[in-house]
Amino acid sequence: MYPARTPIAARAETLYAAMGPGIEISGGSAANTVVGAAAIGVRAGYIGKVCADQLGDVFRHDVRAAGVAFTTPPARGGPPTARCMILVTPDAQRTMQTYLGACVELGPDDVDAGAVEGAAVTYLEGYLWDKPAAKDAFRKAMALAHGAGRKVALTLSDSFCVERHRAEFRDLVDNHVDIVFANEAEIVSLYQVASFDAALAAVRTKAARINVLTRSAKGSVIAAAGALHQVAAEPIDKVVDTTGAGDLYAAGFLAGIAQDRDLATCGRMGAIAAAEVISHIGARPETSLKDLVRARVGTA
Amino acid sequence: MYPARTPIAARAETLYAAMGPGIEISGGSAANTVVGAAAIGVRAGYIGKVCADQLGDVFRHDVRAAGVAFTTPPARGGPPTARCMILVTPDAQRTMQTYLGACVELGPDDVDAGAVEGAAVTYLEGYLWDKPAAKDAFRKAMALAHGAGRKVALTLSDSFCVERHRAEFRDLVDNHVDIVFANEAEIVSLYQVASFDAALAAVRTKAARINVLTRSAKGSVIAAAGALHQVAAEPIDKVVDTTGAGDLYAAGFLAGIAQDRDLATCGRMGAIAAAEVISHIGARPETSLKDLVRARVGTA
Repeated sequence: MYPARTPIAARAETLYAAMGPGIEISGGSAANTVVGAAAIGVRAGYIGKVCADQLGDVFRHDVRAAGVAFTTPPARGGPPTARCMILVTPDAQRTMQTYLGACVELGPDDVDAGAVEGAAVTYLEGYLWDKPAAKDAFRKAMALAHGAGRKVALTLSDSFCVERHRAEFRDLVDNHVDIVFANEAEIVSLYQVASFDAALAAVRTKAARINVLTRSAKGSVIAAAGALHQVAAEPIDKVVDTTGAGDLYAAGFLAGIAQDRDLATCGRMGAIAAAEVISHIGARPETSLKDLVRARVGTA
Repeated sequence: MYPARTPIAARAETLYAAMGPGIEISGGSAANTVVGAAAIGVRAGYIGKVCADQLGDVFRHDVRAAGVAFTTPPARGGPPTARCMILVTPDAQRTMQTYLGACVELGPDDVDAGAVEGAAVTYLEGYLWDKPAAKDAFRKAMALAHGAGRKVALTLSDSFCVERHRAEFRDLVDNHVDIVFANEAEIVSLYQVASFDAALAAVRTKAARINVLTRSAKGSVIAAAGALHQVAAEPIDKVVDTTGAGDLYAAGFLAGIAQDRDLATCGRMGAIAAAEVISHIGARPETSLKDLVRARVGTA
């Protein structure tokens, strides 16, 4: 699967050889989110880096076929398109082993100013906050969005990301973003507190920000403008694969924001989209999210 | 997806661009069958040609990870590994557009004599009956199997294959195989008759052969040694994707043969395996066929 005989390639081959039969599905956290938002019926675009290779072609096809605008030029040469081996256990939990590949080549030149300025929300994926060029891309996108009177959203992505960049993530959350998405582990790590309630109290101190905290089967909590909205998880028959639950929650929530819905409904839309994606393998929707949302919360 | 700018590559690109988001899963009719048989718990091997490319690596991984022996050397250079674009409509029916690629490079040198002579059944896929080298591979495998006192099974694969090679398929069925698999369209085409009943009467004339006729939701009919076994389709909640139904029916049936079960039980095992594979996208099992078979028909 990996083109060069580097140590990481050898490690990947060892892991792959030990894995059971696989299914290949496009992914990527923010890509899953924009695909989900488009599936609900809002216009969405994606900025991200693939390589000009077979997996890059497949990624581009899938995101565009889902109705998402995607024009970032692929890298030619350099590391191949990112890939992630995901092991799903019978309890639907997943273990991920990610090779970021071309992803980390994203830089400020890839940020399409017109697309960002025209979008109600620009959503940033914490996973990418690592290389200087990607950070510059974030800063450029945030400045463009705010300059156009638009909103910036950020997902903390992963508690390991939070640990690695806690001070910078705190600065992003406190001073640069309008909507923050985090799960329990991430928000607890961000504020270095002992409990979810303590983290909720900490994140609520800034009333102008929309704070969206997801809690798996316990649903989600949205804290904004002094109000607190508790949203139950959407019931489903069987949880098959939790991969993409947070990504699709963000998709539903952001689609609601783009449709100017109230925050409780945005949360409900997040729960509906998350429930669909955990009912099957893979992090891309397989049934019409638009129909599900229309049936359960009505049209905007 | 296709490496060269040939007319078929251009056509494939046009179709792919018109398709919705995709999921990539290993397939191949006979490969699906051996994977299914291995999943039930019988020892199985596969002989078939991939190219030494990314899709070939994925195919090899998946078939081996399913417990199937696969040692046919990949082609180096020449056409890339086969691929098939499958469109599944909401009624679970599928339309397939196949590029055979390296498959058609299979020849008699690829037939592993020891593997064929050691197998209870050698199963041949009618799809491959096209190029002289593949026909020679079939003839060599049949001679080896029969020389070792083993059985040869053949699937007619597709009514288009039957139309293209009717006289040769008739000869194969009448003079060279011990077990034949066909669906309604294929067996009706083979005998150029007007009804399933007429085709059944025609195929039954050779009592020494096991004739296995699948009829989708109407179940299957097994005619052998003068007896007729009617097997009901296995009930399932929802048919999602019928791709691989015939392949997995053959898997269950052949696993039963390898386990020396009676023909009615073999048919039931085929129905169980087929029901599992049509309950989700893709033609490879996603739940334990061994557990399903054990729960419903017991151990051999």
